[in-house]
Amino acid sequence: MTAETIEGMAAQIRGGDRRALARAITLVESRRSDHRDRAEALLEALAPAAGGAIRIGISGPPGVGKSTFIEAFGLHLTGQGHRVAVLAVDPSSQRSGGSILGDKTRMELLTRDPAAFIRPSPAGATLGGVARRTRESLLLCEAAGYDVVVVETVGVGQSETAVAQMVDVFLLLLMPGAGDELQGIKRGIVEVADILVVNKADGDQKGAANHAAAEYRHALALLRGSGGWAPPVLQCSALENRGIDAVWDMIGRFRAEMAEALAVRRADQARGWLWRELGDGLLDALRGHPAIAAALPALEAEVAAGRLLPTLAARRLLERFLGS
Amino acid sequence: MTAETIEGMAAQIRGGDRRALARAITLVESRRSDHRDRAEALLEALAPAAGGAIRIGISGPPGVGKSTFIEAFGLHLTGQGHRVAVLAVDPSSQRSGGSILGDKTRMELLTRDPAAFIRPSPAGATLGGVARRTRESLLLCEAAGYDVVVVETVGVGQSETAVAQMVDVFLLLLMPGAGDELQGIKRGIVEVADILVVNKADGDQKGAANHAAAEYRHALALLRGSGGWAPPVLQCSALENRGIDAVWDMIGRFRAEMAEALAVRRADQARGWLWRELGDGLLDALRGHPAIAAALPALEAEVAAGRLLPTLAARRLLERFLGS
Repeated sequence: MTAETIEGMAAQIRGGDRRALARAITLVESRRSDHRDRAEALLEALAPAAGGAIRIGISGPPGVGKSTFIEAFGLHLTGQGHRVAVLAVDPSSQRSGGSILGDKTRMELLTRDPAAFIRPSPAGATLGGVARRTRESLLLCEAAGYDVVVVETVGVGQSETAVAQMVDVFLLLLMPGAGDELQGIKRGIVEVADILVVNKADGDQKGAANHAAAEYRHALALLRGSGGWAPPVLQCSALENRGIDAVWDMIGRFRAEMAEALAVRRADQARGWLWRELGDGLLDALRGHPAIAAALPALEAEVAAGRLLPTLAARRLLERFLGS
Repeated sequence: MTAETIEGMAAQIRGGDRRALARAITLVESRRSDHRDRAEALLEALAPAAGGAIRIGISGPPGVGKSTFIEAFGLHLTGQGHRVAVLAVDPSSQRSGGSILGDKTRMELLTRDPAAFIRPSPAGATLGGVARRTRESLLLCEAAGYDVVVVETVGVGQSETAVAQMVDVFLLLLMPGAGDELQGIKRGIVEVADILVVNKADGDQKGAANHAAAEYRHALALLRGSGGWAPPVLQCSALENRGIDAVWDMIGRFRAEMAEALAVRRADQARGWLWRELGDGLLDALRGHPAIAAALPALEAEVAAGRLLPTLAARRLLERFLGS
């Protein structure tokens, strides 16, 4: 990897070379500081070529058929001439039922499609780390000419919020058995969804899917609050490849109707990312300061136990850090 | 104010002196750095006496009758021998219809109740500032012996999240016309509610209130996801003083059933507060650094426009700040 020049790598990626893209993502995911330097140089070289894709977040409870949906969705798009990249965000190492691309055979056709690029979640990292890398990988995919980037998340952790902060539109997949399956996913996930899709509307589940869609529509109207766009509830069968086109059409409608809001959303996301990077960087420096590192655990325990006011603990730590 | 010793003031507050409490909150709200030093010394002296209250967040859309509800609720509690403090969080200066304690005549009886203490929102501050002061004021109220502290928020901004991070239980007031009124409040607010209360279940609105409660119950079951406690939907008429006791009983049930989770929640809140203080303090120092302050606006604009990667902008700023 080190033998390559940054400019050479950037040119390969801009030319749509999938292997170069895969190597670049590995570089971005690396924690070695020399890799990090190279990754940032590469990102800087490619930044002007990024930004051109529609960024789609997809989540849903385990068992909803996310992989089947993403495969059908991806093949539908590559069939229309789009180039589709799929990234996964899954900070937890313990997976219970959710696919999250680990098992590539689940998307066998899409994996073999030359117009598609599939990348599993970086292993063993925290949510913050995964989110940062996924954001950067997304830009690399855009620079490589993928005009649709799907970010998949498993729906049981806090990753939805992180993913919502990096995509243009967020899809939530649901099962025909309305309500019950949401017991397994995080409170608040419905709130970040722009489009809801009841999958598995096939066979003897058609009636249940119809019913579920109506129920969700009604519940959303009651609870969603204000926000301009009223999240629609669609139905599809990824297995039978029905309704996938309607999902893509709805994303198109969302883009058209929300064009102005989307531009604002992207600017806000970029600004938010900058401030999170600054905040995280400063806190990392604080934690890495020897005197702070020595004092922190005891102070934090005092604070958690309610014996020390957070404001006072913070002031003491900040004086020590900034004064030095 | 400066003539008083911190110990004298602390003793007065611990003795339940309402005027001393009011002065202490003014001190906590002040931005003068000498006042800040005194405020922190006072908070440090009083911290061991704090933590004893049930902390209740109350929100709801404009027109739902928040003031009427809080007055009826407060009088019910003082009638039972409780001491009740009411604080308001309202970072926006433009208020449209929501009361937020500005008009004290709306809670005339509670204001005159010697067992109650009512404090309007600190004026003209940002959400972060208001949240910090309200957290500290809450501790002062506890040290003064108030065993119920209500934090009111207006329901249209981002203050619900901030309030949810400082209370034990969060109540959302709703109107009989199910759904429509939520259009005016922030998306996501239902997600932080532990108990929903349909107010104005009186006169010819009784039927509508019944219907609304059933609808909300159904919608919550569909959309709330997992979380242990299933938020109940109650009905009351603050105007006719009916159903207020049931709300208090439900809060008691919540405390009993969630005792362990509440202890964890408080520890998490304290830890979260510490890290927010650290993060905010560090970012303030960063913003205050002359070279950074000069470079920041242009860099932030580049980032928002998508021309500069947030990671790279952050790195440049951090190197300049931490290197110096």
